[in-house]
Amino acid sequence: MYDVIVIGAGPGGYLAAERISAEGKKILLIEKEHIGGVCLNEGCIPTKTLLYSAKLYDGALHGDKYGISARDITIDHSAVIDRKDKVVKTLVGGVSMALKSKKVEVIMGDAQIKEKKDGKIQVEVNGEIKESTSLIIATGSDSVKPPIPGVKEGLESGFVLTNKEILSLKEAPKKLVVIGGGVIGLEMASYFNSIGCEVTVVEMMGKIAGPTDITISESLKKEYEKKGVKFYLESKVTKVDDKFIYFEKNGEENKVEADKVLLSIGRRANINGIGLENLNVYTERGCIKVDEKQQTNIANVYAVGDCVGGVMLAHTAYREAEVAVNNILGKKDRMQYNAVPSVIYTNPEIASVGESEQSAKEYGLDIIVKQLPMQYSGRYVAENEGGSGIIKIIVDKKWNTLIGVHMMGNYSSEIILAAATMVESNMNIEEIKKVVFPHPSVGEIIREAIFSI
Amino acid sequence: MYDVIVIGAGPGGYLAAERISAEGKKILLIEKEHIGGVCLNEGCIPTKTLLYSAKLYDGALHGDKYGISARDITIDHSAVIDRKDKVVKTLVGGVSMALKSKKVEVIMGDAQIKEKKDGKIQVEVNGEIKESTSLIIATGSDSVKPPIPGVKEGLESGFVLTNKEILSLKEAPKKLVVIGGGVIGLEMASYFNSIGCEVTVVEMMGKIAGPTDITISESLKKEYEKKGVKFYLESKVTKVDDKFIYFEKNGEENKVEADKVLLSIGRRANINGIGLENLNVYTERGCIKVDEKQQTNIANVYAVGDCVGGVMLAHTAYREAEVAVNNILGKKDRMQYNAVPSVIYTNPEIASVGESEQSAKEYGLDIIVKQLPMQYSGRYVAENEGGSGIIKIIVDKKWNTLIGVHMMGNYSSEIILAAATMVESNMNIEEIKKVVFPHPSVGEIIREAIFSI
Repeated sequence: MYDVIVIGAGPGGYLAAERISAEGKKILLIEKEHIGGVCLNEGCIPTKTLLYSAKLYDGALHGDKYGISARDITIDHSAVIDRKDKVVKTLVGGVSMALKSKKVEVIMGDAQIKEKKDGKIQVEVNGEIKESTSLIIATGSDSVKPPIPGVKEGLESGFVLTNKEILSLKEAPKKLVVIGGGVIGLEMASYFNSIGCEVTVVEMMGKIAGPTDITISESLKKEYEKKGVKFYLESKVTKVDDKFIYFEKNGEENKVEADKVLLSIGRRANINGIGLENLNVYTERGCIKVDEKQQTNIANVYAVGDCVGGVMLAHTAYREAEVAVNNILGKKDRMQYNAVPSVIYTNPEIASVGESEQSAKEYGLDIIVKQLPMQYSGRYVAENEGGSGIIKIIVDKKWNTLIGVHMMGNYSSEIILAAATMVESNMNIEEIKKVVFPHPSVGEIIREAIFSI
Repeated sequence: MYDVIVIGAGPGGYLAAERISAEGKKILLIEKEHIGGVCLNEGCIPTKTLLYSAKLYDGALHGDKYGISARDITIDHSAVIDRKDKVVKTLVGGVSMALKSKKVEVIMGDAQIKEKKDGKIQVEVNGEIKESTSLIIATGSDSVKPPIPGVKEGLESGFVLTNKEILSLKEAPKKLVVIGGGVIGLEMASYFNSIGCEVTVVEMMGKIAGPTDITISESLKKEYEKKGVKFYLESKVTKVDDKFIYFEKNGEENKVEADKVLLSIGRRANINGIGLENLNVYTERGCIKVDEKQQTNIANVYAVGDCVGGVMLAHTAYREAEVAVNNILGKKDRMQYNAVPSVIYTNPEIASVGESEQSAKEYGLDIIVKQLPMQYSGRYVAENEGGSGIIKIIVDKKWNTLIGVHMMGNYSSEIILAAATMVESNMNIEEIKKVVFPHPSVGEIIREAIFSI
């Protein structure tokens, strides 16, 4: 008998297990594939490893702008992949160690939720029934594989790849077509563009980068067009054969050639085959339905991370896991999404937090929008020859609070934490003005934007 | 007749002029040398330009760890200096433009404070008397030139350099000796070490990096020792001739050879020759004495930036300038130094804000100290092969607030803004736990440290 069973050892699951075990509870963590989940094994971390190599390579290639020269600059894609494997191994090892040191029992196997009886939740794994008082479902998500003719065959033949397979590609394709210009699609487009592949992005919507503020999204598109990436927006893929991707744009048929295709049109919550129906756990639009405490319609059954849909990001899963844990422990806590940052690790990076101009207007908020070029930051100028970074901030006029920050430019991935802290703590503009920003830093651009209102 | 006269167009001065002019006040800004002051012309910005080139060069040199290879990698020091000049010109131009667009009147010349009569303050510049209701003194600082035998001659011959001359050195020295291992000394040691010079740092105190937390300071020293920089601590320079620097350590005489010597033992406030005595403005230990409103003992006479001593940093000057401006405008505001971040742009960077373990103990605070290797951050591992970064946080036990953050590792320079925001707004540990940190980011190390308490 456990206090808590957690299904899924991705960011949400392993964090929940660690936190709750640290409180002296007896805990079982069940994982069917690999500790660390998508994030550690085929998501956040491996992609950042690749992108950092690409950034160094870009730096060396364009060093002449900064007084550096070199000959025969090359990037060894297969060495980059090897290093990625090493980094993943190190970090997965780290998580395993942490689980061990926090005395979390881990079982590898498929979990099946069975029933809830007398306050006990039963879960079957490897033919055994385990019981607990509370359950946290953190089964994650998988890439969407749409019923487009040829995709199934392409996935089988290795012509079409998901985020998973592309990270183990030992040889870089000459021509890569990316279907879906969201976070994953853009990061991979960025990497393969850097290392010299011909990259085409086919996106169904009228813009790339998902819900990113339109100004930032368009600026990023321009940057990558300059680097040679081709974009087809409002383009619906209709067919894939073993050489071409066919798509429809404005009623016209087009095709583009590829050696490899990355399928990155979205993620789907993993809710099937885990026995949700046995407890009659409610789902909604393919995701597990939870309240602000991360609790499902069944008492003591919680769900966190990608399987609850919404903002499918590792750090959202972390926080949702903490909310679930706190509620299990009887501490008041509720999930809020108004200050969840979002980063795309392209070069330049883009990052944002809070409302975009568009979402704020949809909510009918009375806002001030301020946009500045990053050139207002001395450090940005010192480090970015010809850089075209921007910042856009959204201020709620009624409360005089910062409710959105959107940036394109390097270090944004790290600066956005400060913005998230300001948005999360409802900081007033006058309070932000009193924060001493380090000089010279790119982060000062937030200050510049605030003072330019 | 002006509303405000500002003496000195460095960060404190030009910012004060801009802010107050934006309020519709009539303003005169007097500068004797160059717009932008030390920061823009011979401090923050030029050094960061050099250090970024060095970082790119380091990246290219050690690219093999990340799958990048290149031959004949070189850095052209003179091209780096040319680029630095260009960056400085761009940014100085930007400040001049901003002053113009905000209708700030600028006079180049030596300012002399004359007298205060009937509420009018008189300042003479280029033979003319100007009058204003308020005065902001922002005359900055200059490098300390100690009466060590040979230093004066060395400065004259060009063997000994200050932060000013070293930034215009067209040819890199083979052997550089840095006297004083503070911010300026370490940043220049870092640059010249990167580009291949033999660098020795001679420091009088028992540690480098000034008031930096001892753990961070010692870690940084180790990093640079690995890179080949030699450090002599508790070493007092006794003489300089045209080839050697002589110093005393533990009662023994030593000497070290140099082609060039950087003198970076500290900064001295510029308070002489500006007529402080005519108004009887109080000074204390060589700096202008001010209250929390940045006001001197004379009503309507304010002083900001390096000339008031204390934390001599551009961003401190900015904030002090805003405090002075707000008080001139009749808005309540007072200067606080508990959340002033500090960065040294070495590679790895170090950054800190708030109390160090040492200072907190000196104040008698009951604290929790938590230290973690940066390896706890996935992004850090992905981007730093063999990196030995660390974070140390200081928590006030009584109030459960974060009062100090100290980091070594790249991006610290930008991450520290988030820490400064947390410290400035007295965030409780429980509140910080609810902030959603972007994943994967190096900034997550703050979260890791907080949760590991």
